Amino acid sequence: MDRLSKCEANYVPLTPLSFLKRAGSMYANRTSIIYENTRFTWRQTYERCCRLASSLRSLNILNNHVVSVLAPNVPAMYEMHFAVPMAGAVLNTINSRLDAKNVATILRHSEAKALFVDYQYVQLASEALRILMADSQQGQSSMPLVIVIDDVDSPTGVRLGELEYEQLIQMGNPRFVPIEVQDEWDPISLNYTSGTTSEPKGVVYSHRGAYLSTLSLILGWEMGNEPVYLWSLPMFHCNGWTFTWGIAARGGTNVCIRNTTAYDMYRSIATHKVTHMCCAPIVFNILLEAKLNERREISSPVQILTGGAPPPAPLLEKMEHLGFYVTHAYGLTEATGPALVCEWQAKWEPSTRRT
Amino acid sequence: MDRLSKCEANYVPLTPLSFLKRAGSMYANRTSIIYENTRFTWRQTYERCCRLASSLRSLNILNNHVVSVLAPNVPAMYEMHFAVPMAGAVLNTINSRLDAKNVATILRHSEAKALFVDYQYVQLASEALRILMADSQQGQSSMPLVIVIDDVDSPTGVRLGELEYEQLIQMGNPRFVPIEVQDEWDPISLNYTSGTTSEPKGVVYSHRGAYLSTLSLILGWEMGNEPVYLWSLPMFHCNGWTFTWGIAARGGTNVCIRNTTAYDMYRSIATHKVTHMCCAPIVFNILLEAKLNERREISSPVQILTGGAPPPAPLLEKMEHLGFYVTHAYGLTEATGPALVCEWQAKWEPSTRRT
Repeated sequence: MDRLSKCEANYVPLTPLSFLKRAGSMYANRTSIIYENTRFTWRQTYERCCRLASSLRSLNILNNHVVSVLAPNVPAMYEMHFAVPMAGAVLNTINSRLDAKNVATILRHSEAKALFVDYQYVQLASEALRILMADSQQGQSSMPLVIVIDDVDSPTGVRLGELEYEQLIQMGNPRFVPIEVQDEWDPISLNYTSGTTSEPKGVVYSHRGAYLSTLSLILGWEMGNEPVYLWSLPMFHCNGWTFTWGIAARGGTNVCIRNTTAYDMYRSIATHKVTHMCCAPIVFNILLEAKLNERREISSPVQILTGGAPPPAPLLEKMEHLGFYVTHAYGLTEATGPALVCEWQAKWEPSTRRT
Repeated sequence: MDRLSKCEANYVPLTPLSFLKRAGSMYANRTSIIYENTRFTWRQTYERCCRLASSLRSLNILNNHVVSVLAPNVPAMYEMHFAVPMAGAVLNTINSRLDAKNVATILRHSEAKALFVDYQYVQLASEALRILMADSQQGQSSMPLVIVIDDVDSPTGVRLGELEYEQLIQMGNPRFVPIEVQDEWDPISLNYTSGTTSEPKGVVYSHRGAYLSTLSLILGWEMGNEPVYLWSLPMFHCNGWTFTWGIAARGGTNVCIRNTTAYDMYRSIATHKVTHMCCAPIVFNILLEAKLNERREISSPVQILTGGAPPPAPLLEKMEHLGFYVTHAYGLTEATGPALVCEWQAKWEPSTRRT
């Protein structure tokens, strides 16, 4: 038997989409997402993703088309991590801190067929689209379909074109059968590294790579079942270091916040009993330098996964005093996010770290 | 690109052998195996497996040859789970409770090229080989090379033929480069289900299947890093429900015991601070019905994974009183062991279960 025929005999492709399908059924009534006063269960999240995927197909988004998104850590951004590949398409999350020129470069290079834009980024998107339009008229690229994402909890009425995210959810089919992953090596997402040295460079994640990296980080961080995960790391950053998919795998709760202010983070941690969060080291400063009226008592330990240079010991100690226990990881966009984890070691006990 | 060419572009095959290679390097100085007064580190275990694999090649064991073993949960049995596939061969662990006729059936059907026999099972093996020899003289099968496994901690001198396990380790090359896994769908082990309805039936596990099932059970049981794992479940049972490979993945310690008596289990748990063990429900009775002089105080909780019919609530309660916290799983040989796990749910708290 050659490899191909062996593959096909028992071939169940590895894909993070299996995490959501399983969560929608096994963890159906658990809370999947909390965002301000909006809450969904895993059954609802699965249905909403089916609806969005079916709407994308109706809008002529086909297999391997790229769907871009400019959004903070709102529920729509989370749902798109499943709904876009469930439509057979490839998710391209764009760093919202880029300027219009870089956003236009990404839209052009990725040949995005659709662009979802949170209402906060309408101006940035408009400028990027104007730059893209100028190119387009020189015959260099075609324009993506634009869909605005209004705030799901407090609609603002801001629009950019005719389509709105919740409309697509409403008109979608909750019983849509997701497009089957034919090959686990097919792309699930396309992430651009920052354009510090030249124009942004694209990295393709396969379904297989995303699946394995997700499990690897859950294992390396020892993230148990039912984590309450605070979205302090942007989902546009390597798909939230794979935890977009990983929280579904663990039947956890995604606590979405629009801004990573000290007030919003402390409030979320105290109210929802957050157990896990990821962040860049800069967020430590935000947490440490919070004013008294922004702080809240942390009653049970919060595990933090951070990247970049190893945080110095005094900083770790200060964080531990507040109730945050830091694990250090290292990776890069080209490695599907964090690839190395400084695992906790038993010989470092005794400590208050483990609960 | 078709699937095959895509595979080959970035192809790193999934295999449990990567767990040992990583443990030998990342967890080099941690204790890998404890058996009576014998202890190994992960670096030593990796080297011993390289040595055994090189000796197997010297004995003309080649790719996809079957290597059978009849042994209790001694270090050799553990090492063979890596060393045999590191030689490119396929491991066939034989249920030592079978009679000689069934053992002969398995040796014949698997076309075993070698048979490793713990000194305790020399009589069973001799009988099986006699039956096989009778067939062999009728031209139906050839005879496997026989290697006896003497007790590594208290050698007995019992032999069956000329070769002995520790000799093969000694004469092997510690810097042997393991045979590369060409294709993750290649076989790693061959397990026979019990012959209750007719002759034993063989099930082939692939490197990919073994790798994924191992991770799946670690995740489902939420087994963290550095478990101290008591071998109360036979390794011949679906490769110890994949924990042969899983303990290497977690950098844990394998506590090997020759017999699952109440005395040996309680003594091991208390002495080595066992955190995890798997067993059939019958072992609950052995633990519950232990005499006073066989018991030892259990100072920190022991997680038990069990299979078969769900244990009744009063039994679970009795076990918890002793310090054992039971998770129930279900599976079958054809599904690479336990495939379903009754995950612990937060809503079942408060409890003393989690520490």
